[in-house]
Amino acid sequence: MQMLIEKMFLPAFANPTLELLHDGAVLAVNGARLAFSTDSFVVSPLFFPGGDIGSLAVHGTVNDLAMCGARPLALSMGFILEEGLPMEELWRVVQSIQQAAQAVGVPIATGDTKVVDRGKGDGIFINTTGIGLIPAGVEISPRRAQPGDVVLISGAIAVHGIAIMSVREGLEFETALESDSAPLHELVAQILEAGQDRIHVLRDPTRGGVASALNEIAAGARVGIRLEESRIPIWEEVRGACEILGLDPLYVANEGKCLAIVAPDVAEEVLAAMREHPLGREAAIIGQVVAEHPGKVFLRSRIGGMRVVDMLSGEQLPRIC
Amino acid sequence: MQMLIEKMFLPAFANPTLELLHDGAVLAVNGARLAFSTDSFVVSPLFFPGGDIGSLAVHGTVNDLAMCGARPLALSMGFILEEGLPMEELWRVVQSIQQAAQAVGVPIATGDTKVVDRGKGDGIFINTTGIGLIPAGVEISPRRAQPGDVVLISGAIAVHGIAIMSVREGLEFETALESDSAPLHELVAQILEAGQDRIHVLRDPTRGGVASALNEIAAGARVGIRLEESRIPIWEEVRGACEILGLDPLYVANEGKCLAIVAPDVAEEVLAAMREHPLGREAAIIGQVVAEHPGKVFLRSRIGGMRVVDMLSGEQLPRIC
Repeated sequence: MQMLIEKMFLPAFANPTLELLHDGAVLAVNGARLAFSTDSFVVSPLFFPGGDIGSLAVHGTVNDLAMCGARPLALSMGFILEEGLPMEELWRVVQSIQQAAQAVGVPIATGDTKVVDRGKGDGIFINTTGIGLIPAGVEISPRRAQPGDVVLISGAIAVHGIAIMSVREGLEFETALESDSAPLHELVAQILEAGQDRIHVLRDPTRGGVASALNEIAAGARVGIRLEESRIPIWEEVRGACEILGLDPLYVANEGKCLAIVAPDVAEEVLAAMREHPLGREAAIIGQVVAEHPGKVFLRSRIGGMRVVDMLSGEQLPRIC
Repeated sequence: MQMLIEKMFLPAFANPTLELLHDGAVLAVNGARLAFSTDSFVVSPLFFPGGDIGSLAVHGTVNDLAMCGARPLALSMGFILEEGLPMEELWRVVQSIQQAAQAVGVPIATGDTKVVDRGKGDGIFINTTGIGLIPAGVEISPRRAQPGDVVLISGAIAVHGIAIMSVREGLEFETALESDSAPLHELVAQILEAGQDRIHVLRDPTRGGVASALNEIAAGARVGIRLEESRIPIWEEVRGACEILGLDPLYVANEGKCLAIVAPDVAEEVLAAMREHPLGREAAIIGQVVAEHPGKVFLRSRIGGMRVVDMLSGEQLPRIC
């Protein structure tokens, strides 16, 4: 995927907006700055503990807008339905979209539906595209990460991916493990209030997890990022499931977590602001931006050794979102 | 589809923007009016005479924005790729998108790619969502159609649908019949310049053709629409193919044609403006908005009889766009 994007899409569609490798584009319109972001959802199964493809589609795009520092203004919904889909399933998804959008307070402003023949789709695919408004003074960009900056995460990692994989693989936990799928726009508003223009980068580590998100930022900003394994919040049952499934939790998708890279002088305030929000109670400082080894992410392990955390090569978890 | 939209989507997502049943939503941002429109493309085959899924995806969304009276500002591209898709096909589509977007002068501002397992998709599906800027003074809405208004079409109907069906059914013509897929933003700019605020409705009659587009407008504005069969431009080879395939050309998709409903005093100027543009050379006045039989579309046939042109019931041409 990374190769596709770098070798095919970026050169073909080259323009100043696209090259930022941001979660969304930033457009200037009549003195306002708009965030514009698109995401297609092909998650399997359609319904999973803690959510479904409908709520995920709302949260995913609201979060992409939030990672540009934007408040969501409007969403579009494009459905691709497979012939033979039970109407009852579609109705459940539509209701879930409606509830998720209402909870965020964002209208579904426009939509489209296509039907493909049986065997040419898989139940429901949803594209959600969003427009958001970036408040004055907010300047979020993956390129703003600089040596000395502090890396925070808003909570425990790898929950969404493991919730999905558990259903697929038939794993059982003592307590039901639910996806962390949630809208992060309010958490982000609190982060921005606490850190103002000293919030440099925001990113939700979805597909490819924390490792992939930080690798993209390190490469884009030409900086190194050093993580402390012992500080990265992870639930015991998620760690256990990762071991059983042979997955590295750093590469597993999150759908309700936010990475923030901030100037060191606001790190503690941002951490406190995160922890005040219900979605940020387990927030932690997990690392630092460094000048050494630009483009690379390193992890200091619990026993003190250092290892490179590469970009994921090959497919790890297909159709996780 | 119409039933899905009316019974499921409209009530669930109810908000003032969505209920317009427009090709796109209109959002007010910082004193500017933005058009926002989404469309998924699942056309089969991916490559067809006169275009491919890539150029179609650009034209389709540029046209939806144009039908709100907007100039395109930015497009998003969401790809859903089936595992096993030849990279060469994807590259052809990506290049086609790039060329179509460049010809329009609209940037692909943001994108997303998902891969689904073999047999769970069909090569390439593309969602294109667009943002456009509506110039001051332009007020296009399906609800503005009123008795006395004149109905124009910018050219010959049913070409796209027949070009696709011919490939699928193996029909051969004496001359190669190519899709009419084209971006209509410049034609629309000329229409707006000629008719100003007396242009009431614009609509590109894609899926479901002229008949479905006019039925939606008649229902939305609570007016009748009377068409003159003899005035509707249609190429002989398209008419012949429709007869062979058992299709009514009024229901066959267009991808480079525009319906305009305008005040009678500007109808001739608008017709002249359409004909001056290369994409409007065969433009014609094809009917009138009337007070009788609100919600219905009527056709006066060549031999003088009148018949109701209903909303299409059932599926006619699947995966035409």
